[in-house]
Amino acid sequence: MTLLLSNEEIEDLLTMPESLAALELAYKDVAEGKAIPGTRADSVGQTKGETDTDEALYQLKMMGSIAESLEVGAIRINSDILTWPTKSGTKRRTKAPLAPNNRWTGLVLLFSMNTGEPLAIFPDGIIQLTRVAATTALGIKYMARENAKTVGLIGAGEQARSHVIATAAVRDVESFKVYGPTKANRDAFCQELQGKTGIQMTPVDSAHEAVEGTDIAICATNALDPVLFQDWVEPGMHITSIQDKGASEIEPEAILKADVVAVHERGNMSHGYITKTKGVNMPDQGEDLTMMPELEAVMKSPTLAEIIAGLAPSRTSDDQVTCFLNYRGLGVQFAALGHAVYNNAKKQGVGNELPTDWFTENVCP
Amino acid sequence: MTLLLSNEEIEDLLTMPESLAALELAYKDVAEGKAIPGTRADSVGQTKGETDTDEALYQLKMMGSIAESLEVGAIRINSDILTWPTKSGTKRRTKAPLAPNNRWTGLVLLFSMNTGEPLAIFPDGIIQLTRVAATTALGIKYMARENAKTVGLIGAGEQARSHVIATAAVRDVESFKVYGPTKANRDAFCQELQGKTGIQMTPVDSAHEAVEGTDIAICATNALDPVLFQDWVEPGMHITSIQDKGASEIEPEAILKADVVAVHERGNMSHGYITKTKGVNMPDQGEDLTMMPELEAVMKSPTLAEIIAGLAPSRTSDDQVTCFLNYRGLGVQFAALGHAVYNNAKKQGVGNELPTDWFTENVCP
Repeated sequence: MTLLLSNEEIEDLLTMPESLAALELAYKDVAEGKAIPGTRADSVGQTKGETDTDEALYQLKMMGSIAESLEVGAIRINSDILTWPTKSGTKRRTKAPLAPNNRWTGLVLLFSMNTGEPLAIFPDGIIQLTRVAATTALGIKYMARENAKTVGLIGAGEQARSHVIATAAVRDVESFKVYGPTKANRDAFCQELQGKTGIQMTPVDSAHEAVEGTDIAICATNALDPVLFQDWVEPGMHITSIQDKGASEIEPEAILKADVVAVHERGNMSHGYITKTKGVNMPDQGEDLTMMPELEAVMKSPTLAEIIAGLAPSRTSDDQVTCFLNYRGLGVQFAALGHAVYNNAKKQGVGNELPTDWFTENVCP
Repeated sequence: MTLLLSNEEIEDLLTMPESLAALELAYKDVAEGKAIPGTRADSVGQTKGETDTDEALYQLKMMGSIAESLEVGAIRINSDILTWPTKSGTKRRTKAPLAPNNRWTGLVLLFSMNTGEPLAIFPDGIIQLTRVAATTALGIKYMARENAKTVGLIGAGEQARSHVIATAAVRDVESFKVYGPTKANRDAFCQELQGKTGIQMTPVDSAHEAVEGTDIAICATNALDPVLFQDWVEPGMHITSIQDKGASEIEPEAILKADVVAVHERGNMSHGYITKTKGVNMPDQGEDLTMMPELEAVMKSPTLAEIIAGLAPSRTSDDQVTCFLNYRGLGVQFAALGHAVYNNAKKQGVGNELPTDWFTENVCP
């Protein structure tokens, strides 16, 4: 049988400690050559979807990977209507929920490496949020000061929410300062998360105020321009960023202030990454980091996988600045978390089973 | 609702003339920049699947594309256990059907470019056979002599079968000579296809005998070494090949004898094609054609799309030799044929509908 799961079920099945453990194992596997971290290919074209912004494009994304020790392969698929509304003076990429019942289309397909069969099909939403935040947290676990207690958080959306939970799972955090562009949102965010975690959460009026004097500075936004700057980087700080739409959330000069920078894949950061946008102008088609001459140093950086596996050094003193660029991610994150979700679901009898014959065939392809 | 279809249903829904028309349109779109022909990325690793050969690997393949004029995107996924048994002295790559009930795992997911939603999910088997043969036939339609009447067919398997039907749809074929390594198979093949098409089908004892004196020479095998050689190429002939596992089915010197060679994608024939095989030795990991110095000329070849769209010349006389290298294919073939299948199924009320909510989500991914 092939298991179908919903985000609601996945939310209950996947705890942060389990996610961290699964990812930690997957990253060790990547460093030791037991996993193919991921291949990715996107197609972009015109859409006739009805959106309320002038700029809209269709993007079909796919990311694949295999994890030998888990004996699974996974493909994550996104079929998105992209729009670029301007909010608070900043252009942000958003995905319009134009599928029936105002929904988005993001799927993970999990396959057995031993039989080829599709073990499970489920939405990517919760896993997407979890894998990004949990990976940021692994960066913190292996790179931030052991005694880090204060966190500056730039961003007050869904990703920021997961980052609070994930960060609290790897360090004994005493307080968060949180900045998001909309006051009502950051206030509500802090109230909710303080209630949930018991950790002091303070909304602040600027990104600078959020990170000033903190041990860990996290960027978890969907801004298209840098939100963290070199003058804000203090000795001993760990800085981290989840994306580089348009430009990195951390300005290049700030990245270069770090003593240790970790990346997902060394060398060409777009390795294994194809985007075809024939005849289409993407408003925020970001340059590869390899194209920024000031970031050539990053090309020699260790990977997070190497640091986790102990194959590359992390910080060597409390005064050093460390930086993890949690960009784009690796397909193996979906294999690892998908495997954890699948195993928990089977154990607990959660989800709907469909005949596997519906998704296999008796004709040799 | 999201439509699920079986190969049996697709076989009835997709006729060869419709397939040819759909592909012809898609190729024109590709030439005119209205489609993204395809991106592809594969991951290969060890399998613990139980096969009866020593060499076995797991391969997770994905190929994506969008076709704006059809307003759909498509992803084809293969989750294969590859083995390399030796048959009649030749090593052949085969896919072991290890999914439950001895089945293979190959899927096409069709998405709306206007809403993002998954319109349909179906197996790739029939479409795979059809798209390869129909594309070979489009090459014949646009490149072979108008008066071509005799065909030499090297191969007597599933692909060869589809090639008989497809070729007969674009030329007034009087006779086929067919070679396959196993006498019983080629005899049965000819008997079956002659009954089905009414065209004279003659089994012969060698590949050379099959193509000697014919107007069109088709290679439709899964051999790992060339099966068609330069000395066999005669003036006026159209030669064509469906694959380059290990090496091209047509030896490079034979390709160079052609006055016009058409390819799927000019330049690097592996453009948009990633295979990651970290730490794994693939018995037949083929070199890219770009690696063969004798084939540099091919890099300047027109694409089949350009020839179909009238943007590049085909043969200019009956004496010329033409060649179409139908390698690897384009993802847009699945978008085009998938769209045709989906529309026919909706019209005829065929297939099983599942709630689209099962494959979409209310969390922004």
